[in-house]
Amino acid sequence: MNASPSRLERPVLRCASDPAWLPQALARFDQVLVDHAHCEKKAAGQAISLLAGFPEKELLVQRMARLAQEEIGHFRQVYDRMLARGLSLGRDRGDPYARRLRKLVRHERDDTRLTDLLLVSALIEARSHERLQLLSEGLSDPDLAQFYAGLAQAEHGHALLFVELAATYAPEDEVVARLEVMGEAEAEIVRALPLEPRIH
Amino acid sequence: MNASPSRLERPVLRCASDPAWLPQALARFDQVLVDHAHCEKKAAGQAISLLAGFPEKELLVQRMARLAQEEIGHFRQVYDRMLARGLSLGRDRGDPYARRLRKLVRHERDDTRLTDLLLVSALIEARSHERLQLLSEGLSDPDLAQFYAGLAQAEHGHALLFVELAATYAPEDEVVARLEVMGEAEAEIVRALPLEPRIH
Repeated sequence: MNASPSRLERPVLRCASDPAWLPQALARFDQVLVDHAHCEKKAAGQAISLLAGFPEKELLVQRMARLAQEEIGHFRQVYDRMLARGLSLGRDRGDPYARRLRKLVRHERDDTRLTDLLLVSALIEARSHERLQLLSEGLSDPDLAQFYAGLAQAEHGHALLFVELAATYAPEDEVVARLEVMGEAEAEIVRALPLEPRIH
Repeated sequence: MNASPSRLERPVLRCASDPAWLPQALARFDQVLVDHAHCEKKAAGQAISLLAGFPEKELLVQRMARLAQEEIGHFRQVYDRMLARGLSLGRDRGDPYARRLRKLVRHERDDTRLTDLLLVSALIEARSHERLQLLSEGLSDPDLAQFYAGLAQAEHGHALLFVELAATYAPEDEVVARLEVMGEAEAEIVRALPLEPRIH
């Protein structure tokens, strides 16, 4: 990680969530919790997929393996809380947000594909950070609020990790410029999606 | 887990590995180590895939989440040893053994599909247990031998876990009978595959 922190640590989100998101999420928190479990599961799967896709990149493999383990740990914590509330995981309804974001990935070359995949993950983590933080501030149950504050902090770290990894494998200027473009696209996607009681 | 342990804890393998496997594996240990890393990665992915495929089965979800975390932990340990030996992960060359085993899965009904998927995993874990145990007994480096003894023990536990889970979601008699059939098929697959410096 030889990139200067100042430019890579800038906030990557170009818009805040609709203020109506939090009240809806709190009112239908059980649905949010189930969606959140699916998100953690998919984050673990995506980390394994990244290390499988770029097995020659040592630092990436190490970081993604550690991340996958951490995300499954989060899945288990969220799942335990689901069970305690009598909830069942149910079918994954898919994630239109992530699907649209992934359409931004340039597939022509391995290097730009890697940059884009890492920045898609950075954006998903950054948006998750924003929303888990909102939840932690809005939940009235102090234990649950603290749980979400911890997870929000973790997502923030993951967003930084993905940006730093991108800048490990591509010139920093290119990463910063691409993140600007993808960040604008992410903001448009978020604005266009219907408001739903889910993490994104 | 209400099944009687006696019948479910029987050894599931119907043939021992070719005695020529160990000398070849020791002679080309670096290749085995890289294959082993890929195996642990795929085991983690398969555990996530099982919990994603049967999200309504609470015990399965809990056990598979824990297993995925453990398998990624094993991947990281194996990968560290690879790096210490100057090895790189490289492309996954695929796994003809697992591919052939998976052809045994009955896809017509969800319940028999689950039984078969769990028993395929049980057989893979049992074969891994046998071969990691052989490695632990054959490796001259005491540290590496101990490392493999520990992992072999873990694989044994996973094989039992998969059989017990199968008997949680299907009648024990059916599981025992199906394991007999699939165990015979596994033995044929192992005998038919060329001897290679890989876990299976």
